[in-house]
Amino acid sequence: MAEKRIILPKSEMPDKWYNVVADLPVPLKPTLNPQTLQPATPDDFAPIFPMAVVEQEVSDKDFIEIPDEVMDALSLWRPTPLVRASRLEKYLDTPARIYYKNESVSPAGSHKPNTAVAQAFYNKQAGMKRISTETGAGQWGSALSFAGSLFGIDVTVYMVRISFEQKPYRKSMIHTWGGEIFSSPSDQTQIGRMFREKYPDTNGTLGMAISEAVEDAATHGDTNYSIGSVLNHVCLHQTVVGEEALRQMAKTGDYPDVVIGCVGGGSNFAGLAYPFIREKIRDKKKTRILATEPFSCPTLTKGLYAYDYGDTAMVAPVVFMHTLGHTFEPPGIHAGGLRYHGMAPTICTLFDQKIMEAAAYHQNECFEAAVTFARTEGIIPAPETSHAIRGAINEALDAKKKKEERVILFNFSGHGHFDMASYDKYFEKDLEDYEYPSEKIQAALKDLPKVDL
Amino acid sequence: MAEKRIILPKSEMPDKWYNVVADLPVPLKPTLNPQTLQPATPDDFAPIFPMAVVEQEVSDKDFIEIPDEVMDALSLWRPTPLVRASRLEKYLDTPARIYYKNESVSPAGSHKPNTAVAQAFYNKQAGMKRISTETGAGQWGSALSFAGSLFGIDVTVYMVRISFEQKPYRKSMIHTWGGEIFSSPSDQTQIGRMFREKYPDTNGTLGMAISEAVEDAATHGDTNYSIGSVLNHVCLHQTVVGEEALRQMAKTGDYPDVVIGCVGGGSNFAGLAYPFIREKIRDKKKTRILATEPFSCPTLTKGLYAYDYGDTAMVAPVVFMHTLGHTFEPPGIHAGGLRYHGMAPTICTLFDQKIMEAAAYHQNECFEAAVTFARTEGIIPAPETSHAIRGAINEALDAKKKKEERVILFNFSGHGHFDMASYDKYFEKDLEDYEYPSEKIQAALKDLPKVDL
Repeated sequence: MAEKRIILPKSEMPDKWYNVVADLPVPLKPTLNPQTLQPATPDDFAPIFPMAVVEQEVSDKDFIEIPDEVMDALSLWRPTPLVRASRLEKYLDTPARIYYKNESVSPAGSHKPNTAVAQAFYNKQAGMKRISTETGAGQWGSALSFAGSLFGIDVTVYMVRISFEQKPYRKSMIHTWGGEIFSSPSDQTQIGRMFREKYPDTNGTLGMAISEAVEDAATHGDTNYSIGSVLNHVCLHQTVVGEEALRQMAKTGDYPDVVIGCVGGGSNFAGLAYPFIREKIRDKKKTRILATEPFSCPTLTKGLYAYDYGDTAMVAPVVFMHTLGHTFEPPGIHAGGLRYHGMAPTICTLFDQKIMEAAAYHQNECFEAAVTFARTEGIIPAPETSHAIRGAINEALDAKKKKEERVILFNFSGHGHFDMASYDKYFEKDLEDYEYPSEKIQAALKDLPKVDL
Repeated sequence: MAEKRIILPKSEMPDKWYNVVADLPVPLKPTLNPQTLQPATPDDFAPIFPMAVVEQEVSDKDFIEIPDEVMDALSLWRPTPLVRASRLEKYLDTPARIYYKNESVSPAGSHKPNTAVAQAFYNKQAGMKRISTETGAGQWGSALSFAGSLFGIDVTVYMVRISFEQKPYRKSMIHTWGGEIFSSPSDQTQIGRMFREKYPDTNGTLGMAISEAVEDAATHGDTNYSIGSVLNHVCLHQTVVGEEALRQMAKTGDYPDVVIGCVGGGSNFAGLAYPFIREKIRDKKKTRILATEPFSCPTLTKGLYAYDYGDTAMVAPVVFMHTLGHTFEPPGIHAGGLRYHGMAPTICTLFDQKIMEAAAYHQNECFEAAVTFARTEGIIPAPETSHAIRGAINEALDAKKKKEERVILFNFSGHGHFDMASYDKYFEKDLEDYEYPSEKIQAALKDLPKVDL
């Protein structure tokens, strides 16, 4: 039998993060201070981020060393397995060879701890007592609480109200790791109280929760803010995924023809894809790179490409990115995460430069893919991850039609153990397929900041 | 850095199960037909088990080959990691070295799939269309549904009522793998309807659920029964855990001074411990072997040692074992599993022969151990597993007191992702410590079958 799971020895764990900024064909547009709308300086970030993180955020160095303490924390679950999905291939009866990088084996159940442990470490090192953050589906809040418990730093999580109510066990998980959690909008912040008054029936949004977490950090001297996606340093920390996958693919004798990840803010996609993008840019590899997203939040496939605020209250930095508008409120009917209005600016640049592509799917076809995966490969996927699986299965079926031996690699970003209520809804045919209307996206144009550089 | 996690290559996966029956210092007393109370013959088992399983149940051969199809299914998640709990050691400030075998990495989240895939395979091979089973906390029912999906065999699960209500996402998980599930006592079986009439307010018990599952199998020609613990063949299938651990410990340069597992029916304990018991018996290793159980279900530490029925309705085989009586109904206040009235007869023999020892703990001290583990090593343990962690921490603290370099190995049998409501109760100080009263155990004497061999 061939090895089904390729597992690297600890000695082959990557000890550097890869910074895709070094290889972008065009420079990133500067991130702006939300008050002045002028390029942000490191000083603008200092009230909410430790300096080590700010330096990574603005760095264009290609490799950045991973501190020993972070390596040690990562080694609790890394290197993660690269798995040949041979049972799925057989079920699909495809000539394609499907591999997935299994990031669900982390204690928090997703790729999110990769950056959480780095951010907890740098904040502890900078003398912080506490970190505040937002979470949507809950993967990120859990991951940061887990990381906080490892480095002895307190964690406060603002969780989007509808998810807080739909996923009560995320709260229990966060408590188990010693974190504290509030349903957002909360009464803990000024902006939260304002949202509650203005929109008493809101489901909450990531944009609102970010506003609360940023305010919490900005108004407490012992507290910093931590973000789970979008920004350069987050994507950077995630590249251990792709660096490992490169080494693991080499051991299989295959090289991916297509690399796939789902995108919300973009961090799991970036983590797997960026090292392969480096190979594509530097070594002219022909690999296709595919980001998959929900039709209900079609940031890459239908969003505007413009400067926008990272949060609803316009206190977070202004970023040049694909956006649905910072007032975007996704429909409550959508079961998964991936509901952020913006997108990592590095991904937007790569997409704009046609180095990568994007596709959008409906949630029912994604759950169908997830169930197929669970019944063949065993693991129950997170609803977010199901978008990557849908992409991989579509590629495998296309390869079958064209009788091609396509090699497919996707990021299995997380398990669905805390999302089982969405599976219930899927089986009860209670999930609606919804496409976010183009008119609403066009209407968001008027809310964009007027930038004049 | 030393390797934190020892992972075997697939080539070193054990390809044989170890049967401890071959090395027992005294023979097992025969299992009896529940009607005649005379030694059961293979024919007695044939209506509910495939012949391959029956042969394993009565075998005294020391090694039994694992079929290729089962090896292939196991390789979805095996070999599992052996992990040095270095952060826990540091937290406890102990000279002990603590290792755990991480069985929570299986798709169903526990050790249970080890036997589930074997039983699903043998039943499929025997031409069965369906398997019925019971489940308590839900780990076993999930595992069998997962295994059924791999081998294309239908699975029906009878889940103890109180757990069915407390853990709704076990149902969703079982549905995701294509299984069907009923709250037990159910209206699906004659015995279930009888229980519902006689005890309308019952929380259900494993004993009742077993009665239902056995009736379902016995009354449907295309259906067999499958059990997740207690019986010899189940313990046999679990020994891949200990065989791997033996090979992994050899790579660390350490050998355990004490091997620990929690016990309900005994299968995860047996899986890890039996290969070490073989070394102890054959090679005179001085390893201590420790089974840990709840005070609320103290089968080994306080139970009778006698012939008893395996289920409440007295339709399952009669086994010579430690028992709290087949009418045992555990208190609803207990948060974890481990609530079976009996115990694997091989474990009972080893305990009676003083080859192993046992200890009982209260649930609050176990949750305390679980939270300590989650905050140091990351993974959130199943409430059952917390009993093994309590044992390991107590050993580590004792080693500290005695200034001993004790090597401790325990079975991390499963994660707690579907048990987070119990953590909530623990944090809310809503869990009662309860010791099952000795009088009740003595009173169960009158219900034991009158065996005259």
